[in-house]
Amino acid sequence: MKWHEKGILILVLYSVVMFFVELSLGGQNSLSGPRFFLWSERAVASILTLEMALRFWYHSPHTAKGTDRAYFESPEMVFDIVAVLPFWLGFVITNPEGLAVVRSMRVLRLLKFYRASPVAHIVMDSLISQRKKIRLVSAVVTITVLFAGVSMYHLEGPAHPETFGTMWGSVWWAVVTMTTVGYGDMSPTTFPGQCVAILIMITSIGIIGALISIVSSAFQAAGDAVK
Amino acid sequence: MKWHEKGILILVLYSVVMFFVELSLGGQNSLSGPRFFLWSERAVASILTLEMALRFWYHSPHTAKGTDRAYFESPEMVFDIVAVLPFWLGFVITNPEGLAVVRSMRVLRLLKFYRASPVAHIVMDSLISQRKKIRLVSAVVTITVLFAGVSMYHLEGPAHPETFGTMWGSVWWAVVTMTTVGYGDMSPTTFPGQCVAILIMITSIGIIGALISIVSSAFQAAGDAVK
Amino acid sequence: MKWHEKGILILVLYSVVMFFVELSLGGQNSLSGPRFFLWSERAVASILTLEMALRFWYHSPHTAKGTDRAYFESPEMVFDIVAVLPFWLGFVITNPEGLAVVRSMRVLRLLKFYRASPVAHIVMDSLISQRKKIRLVSAVVTITVLFAGVSMYHLEGPAHPETFGTMWGSVWWAVVTMTTVGYGDMSPTTFPGQCVAILIMITSIGIIGALISIVSSAFQAAGDAVK
Amino acid sequence: MKWHEKGILILVLYSVVMFFVELSLGGQNSLSGPRFFLWSERAVASILTLEMALRFWYHSPHTAKGTDRAYFESPEMVFDIVAVLPFWLGFVITNPEGLAVVRSMRVLRLLKFYRASPVAHIVMDSLISQRKKIRLVSAVVTITVLFAGVSMYHLEGPAHPETFGTMWGSVWWAVVTMTTVGYGDMSPTTFPGQCVAILIMITSIGIIGALISIVSSAFQAAGDAVK
Repeated sequence: MKWHEKGILILVLYSVVMFFVELSLGGQNSLSGPRFFLWSERAVASILTLEMALRFWYHSPHTAKGTDRAYFESPEMVFDIVAVLPFWLGFVITNPEGLAVVRSMRVLRLLKFYRASPVAHIVMDSLISQRKKIRLVSAVVTITVLFAGVSMYHLEGPAHPETFGTMWGSVWWAVVTMTTVGYGDMSPTTFPGQCVAILIMITSIGIIGALISIVSSAFQAAGDAVK
Repeated sequence: MKWHEKGILILVLYSVVMFFVELSLGGQNSLSGPRFFLWSERAVASILTLEMALRFWYHSPHTAKGTDRAYFESPEMVFDIVAVLPFWLGFVITNPEGLAVVRSMRVLRLLKFYRASPVAHIVMDSLISQRKKIRLVSAVVTITVLFAGVSMYHLEGPAHPETFGTMWGSVWWAVVTMTTVGYGDMSPTTFPGQCVAILIMITSIGIIGALISIVSSAFQAAGDAVK
Repeated sequence: MKWHEKGILILVLYSVVMFFVELSLGGQNSLSGPRFFLWSERAVASILTLEMALRFWYHSPHTAKGTDRAYFESPEMVFDIVAVLPFWLGFVITNPEGLAVVRSMRVLRLLKFYRASPVAHIVMDSLISQRKKIRLVSAVVTITVLFAGVSMYHLEGPAHPETFGTMWGSVWWAVVTMTTVGYGDMSPTTFPGQCVAILIMITSIGIIGALISIVSSAFQAAGDAVK
Repeated sequence: MKWHEKGILILVLYSVVMFFVELSLGGQNSLSGPRFFLWSERAVASILTLEMALRFWYHSPHTAKGTDRAYFESPEMVFDIVAVLPFWLGFVITNPEGLAVVRSMRVLRLLKFYRASPVAHIVMDSLISQRKKIRLVSAVVTITVLFAGVSMYHLEGPAHPETFGTMWGSVWWAVVTMTTVGYGDMSPTTFPGQCVAILIMITSIGIIGALISIVSSAFQAAGDAVK
């Protein structure tokens, strides 16, 4: 790894640490609180944006060796964008929830450390090579969540208007159930609702098994390569 | 894939999208709301039924090449039936819960996309070839759920008449616990009830492991075939 | 399988079905309700006991070919005992909880179907051959549950005397948490309690992984043998 | 295994049993209650400390064969320290929560049995050889927990000041959710909070899959070596 890449990672670490220092001092947004954090963040975001621009230019067809398609299809490019996009979105978004998400995404700059980890590269490459399986699982998840959302909305909605009464509420319940988290903030109480819920739970064990199998293969690949 | 098969899949997608449009407009059942959705659904269901009839005829002994048993034992046939059965059941069923389930099952038409996915075929074939293992797991699940249902009904029923007081309530609790969802809408509070619950939880980890192993094998098979 | 073994399995099925018929008629114990169920159960239990006695005698050193140690170390013997023990215990036990457990255990007679399943034999043999691993996992579980029980009793007990206030309550919480069921009937609220809880949760993911690995190996073995 | 090692393990077992006897007699701390338990613990802790000191000296460069680096990098050394450290910390720590944790850690002396288990050695060695993968998973967990903590604090904090209102509360929620325990003591109720929660849940299934894969490899290694 070259020295400038190390510098960027140190910068990323610095900006995340500063973010938590700011939070622990009670700063609810960048404009209130000490000016230092605001300018520190602006400086870091500018440098990271410059780095991203340079990398884009370096891998683009403007250079002698032609476009480096590998970079533009890699997770690295995504992480480079994720590291700076929130900063620029912060100038456009005005509603407080959006700003909160955008601010929190600063933590995701740590994903830039991906560049420094050979194991992460092997795992990610294996995941990408299994994209057909991931697409299949996603399709099954989508169908199950849609079915769960629609059917629980119809079956449990009348009995629990404040929770299952909206489509989104039923979808939220479906995800909480299918990941086996099961908060219990909402649970079906009618007989047909519970029957459908049981079918969904059994399907979800299969889906989780599929996901574990995919991630497992990726880590197996990493194990073979590293040893 | 031939053009008419693509047409059917586009039709399926259209009917599911229309269903969600209808729902977002607040249509609680097909008869209220704009007439368009009712007739759109009737048209789609008729075409899908016709397609199923043609496929049945094509694979039946009436044709020159004899019965195609492979089709009649395949998941494809099941998905073909699932895609149209709810529509016809809607004329017979009159209680609102049944109608809600039947209406929600329109989403399951998306399972027809199975036909277009080679990965799904490999995974499904592997699952079918493991049917003996699946039968074994089902048997263990059945015994555990029955035991859980009966024993919790007896042990916790007196203390919680409104939840564990019915056999179905105890079975519902058993499934929620064994999938490790654990809503907390009901949980044992007596010492013997908690002892039995611990035994059931430990058994359920083993059962989940078995299911993950089966699904894992199926996805492993898909990985070997696709690469 | 010989005809008398099939007969025993049919008898087992009959007795479990009768049990559920009796329950659905509202019989809370064998002495109230119609006399038929009481005598039916007595007859079945007697025949199953006789069968067990005959099998014990057949595999014992009294016969010409010497003791069949394989039988006396097999799960079959355990299931043979489990099928009749509750009936005889019913004459000794008098407290209602004990009787409820004993009565519910009639369902476990279905485990006798193990004898008829080659896949179950392979899975069980593989599990037995992994007994050292199972012992290791049990040891880790025991240490974790004991540590969880003692520490949560001390840390959360003062804040929640009605739930974490007893050692058993804390152990119950530990098992509910470590199987990731998480009812939420009790959860730590103090900072040190939550820190210890996080350690226990992370340990439990490892333990579940170990259990899944063991069961997975057993099912893999079954897959290789059956195919 | 030599006789003195067996003696140490018997001593460990004795001290843990005594601890539970003391607890069942209602002793809330070592100074109240019968003096016997206090002196028994002091004796055991002194012997274990002496043993640790001897082992340190034996493996140190003072002996003829030079430093035994293997011991000083082994889990055994960690378990030797864990067995006695709490006793000595008990003289320094004065706040009741700290003392409770320190007292509870006596149970962890059972980890000394690691020395007697060949299977545990193989599993642990395999886990150590996978340290790069474990580091990768830890990094992903850290990023996800930090992101979850910060974003839920911002998104759900205003709506639930008593639960999501502190950073630690949000981190606690993140761990409870990511291990799929899901107590339901706190759950997001705003739309953006639920969206972020769904992303975190899906990530957590992947993380659990990675952990299961790592532990699975370790147990597979043990299976190959033991058989």
